[in-house]
Amino acid sequence: MTTAQPTPKIAILGAGLIGAAWAALFQHHGADVRVWDPHPDALAATPKRMTKPLAQLAEAAPDAGPLGSVTLCETVAEAVTGADLVQENAPENIPVKHDLYAQVEPLLADHAVLASSTSALTWSELSPGLQDPARLITAHPFNPPHLVPLVEIYGTDADRIARAEALYRGAGRVPVRLNKDATGHIANRLASALWREAVFMVQDGIADVEAIDAALVNGPGLRWSVLGAHMAYHLGGGAGGMQGYLAHLGPSQERRWAALGSPTLSPEVQAELVAGVTREAAGRDIAELEDTRDKALIAALRARKDAPHV
Amino acid sequence: MTTAQPTPKIAILGAGLIGAAWAALFQHHGADVRVWDPHPDALAATPKRMTKPLAQLAEAAPDAGPLGSVTLCETVAEAVTGADLVQENAPENIPVKHDLYAQVEPLLADHAVLASSTSALTWSELSPGLQDPARLITAHPFNPPHLVPLVEIYGTDADRIARAEALYRGAGRVPVRLNKDATGHIANRLASALWREAVFMVQDGIADVEAIDAALVNGPGLRWSVLGAHMAYHLGGGAGGMQGYLAHLGPSQERRWAALGSPTLSPEVQAELVAGVTREAAGRDIAELEDTRDKALIAALRARKDAPHV
Repeated sequence: MTTAQPTPKIAILGAGLIGAAWAALFQHHGADVRVWDPHPDALAATPKRMTKPLAQLAEAAPDAGPLGSVTLCETVAEAVTGADLVQENAPENIPVKHDLYAQVEPLLADHAVLASSTSALTWSELSPGLQDPARLITAHPFNPPHLVPLVEIYGTDADRIARAEALYRGAGRVPVRLNKDATGHIANRLASALWREAVFMVQDGIADVEAIDAALVNGPGLRWSVLGAHMAYHLGGGAGGMQGYLAHLGPSQERRWAALGSPTLSPEVQAELVAGVTREAAGRDIAELEDTRDKALIAALRARKDAPHV
Repeated sequence: MTTAQPTPKIAILGAGLIGAAWAALFQHHGADVRVWDPHPDALAATPKRMTKPLAQLAEAAPDAGPLGSVTLCETVAEAVTGADLVQENAPENIPVKHDLYAQVEPLLADHAVLASSTSALTWSELSPGLQDPARLITAHPFNPPHLVPLVEIYGTDADRIARAEALYRGAGRVPVRLNKDATGHIANRLASALWREAVFMVQDGIADVEAIDAALVNGPGLRWSVLGAHMAYHLGGGAGGMQGYLAHLGPSQERRWAALGSPTLSPEVQAELVAGVTREAAGRDIAELEDTRDKALIAALRARKDAPHV
C-alpha cells in the first residue's frame, strides 16, 4: 500500500483458520484489522492462531512495510462500523450467513464491500440475505490463504468489485474475476476435474496414488505454477500457437476427453486412496506435511520475485 | 552420478527439439552421449539446438559435475552400439518407429534399454516392432524435458525399468512408473482433464481465458508444484486426513464431478480460445513466452533445493 492512500479498515468476521489467515495477511500489509467471532474462546485464540501466518508472511513478503494493527472486537458492530471491507468467514451454512448479513448490513458504510470467503456456496445463494445485494461479493481464497495469492471474485457492482480488488492487491493477492456465478468458482472446478481423472487412474489400476502425485508435482503442476493451461497449449502449437494447436490436435484432444474416466468413490477406491496417501506421507503427520508445504510455497513465492511467471 | 559408477552411454535417436533437450540433459550430467538423426541437416544443427538447454541447465543444476561428451553419428549403428540407454525421439508414427526398431534391435547390447519418448502412442502399439518386446519401455518426458523433471515410464521388464530409472535419476529426473499401459500416460491425462473444464468455463461464459490461467497459476497450479492432488485432499480433511475428507465431503465431490462440463471445440469456442491467449500474451511472441516460462521454471527448480516439495 502506498503512503498516499489512507490505511484500509478491514473487518474479519469469524476467527477460524481462514479468518486468522486473512487477519494476519491484512495486518502484515499495513491495514487496520478488526476481528470478531461469536465464540469468545475463538476470539481470544486469534492472536495465537495468527502467530504462524505472521511469521510465514515475514519470510514470504519481507518488503510489505510496517505492520498494521489488530483489534479483537466483542461485538459485530465494533468490527464492522467504518470498515472498507468486511471479510466474512462464517460456517458454510446459508441461514447462518443470512442471519449474520442481517446484523451487518445496517452497520455498513455506503462504500463498504461485504465479501464472503465461501468455497461451497454461490453469490446467488448468499445475496438474498441482503436488502441491497450489490453490497455482497464472493471472494474465495485458496488454502493457505496468506500464502497462495489467488482470490476469486464474483459480484454485480463493478465499483465495489474494483475497490475490493484494489484492497486485495494491496495485500499482495491476485484477484481473478468471474463473469458468471458458478459453484466451485474457477480453481475448485479445475481441481475437481483433475482429481476426478487422478481417482480414475487409481480405480483403473493405471498408477498408484503416490505415483500420480509425483507425476503432478514434478510435471504439469510445476509447469502450471509458471504457465496457465490455455497458454501451455498456445506454446504447444509451435509457431502457429493456439490456432495451430487446435487445427492440428483439436480432434485428438476431443478424443482424449472422451476417453477420460468417471470414477466412483466406492469403498474399495476409498480404501486405496487412504492407503496411497498413507504410503506417500511416510509417517509424517498432517502438521508436518503442512509445514513442508508452507516452506515450499514460501520458497516458490520468493523465486517468483526474481523470475515472474508467464 | 557418483564417481564409482562407469560413465553412462546414452544414444539419442532423432535430433529435433526433444532429442536435443535429452542430449543436453545427459551431457550436463556427465554422460557419453551419441546422437543420430536420419537428416544430415538436423544432425549438423544439434550442437546449436543444444546451446540454450545447456546454458539453462548450468543455471538450473549448477552442481552436476563435469560435462560429458557428445558425438554426432552418421549411422544408427555408431550411435547405438554399446549404449546403455537408447532414447528414441522419432516422429509419432507407428511404422516409422517400427522400422527404426528393426534397425536398432540387432545392435543393442544385452543389457540395453530402448526407451521411446512417445507422447501420443503406447507401449502396446510400439512393442510389436521388436523381436523381444521386453527391451522396450516408454519414457515420456514433459516439455521442456531438460527442465521439467518428470519422466513417465511403462514397460514389462522390471530389471530394465530399474536400470533406466537409475539413469534418469542420475540425470536429475524424477521417473514415475505406470502399472498399466495408458494413452496419455499420467500427466497428459491430468492436463487433458483439467483443460476440458478450463475450456468448458470459457464456453459457458464463467470466466475469460486469461482469468482462468491467472487463477491456475496463482492458485492450484502453485500448490500442485509443491503438493500432489491426492495429498491436497488428505490435508483438506483436517485431523481426519483423506479418510475424514472422503467421509464428510466425498458425496459433495461426486456431485461436483457430475456438474463438470463437456465442451466442444466449436469454431466459436476455438475463436474465443485464440482471442483469449492473444490478450494474455499481450504482444509477446512464442519465443518470448517460452523464455519467460523457462526463467520461471529455473527459479522454481532452484527454490526446491532449499525447500523440497511434499
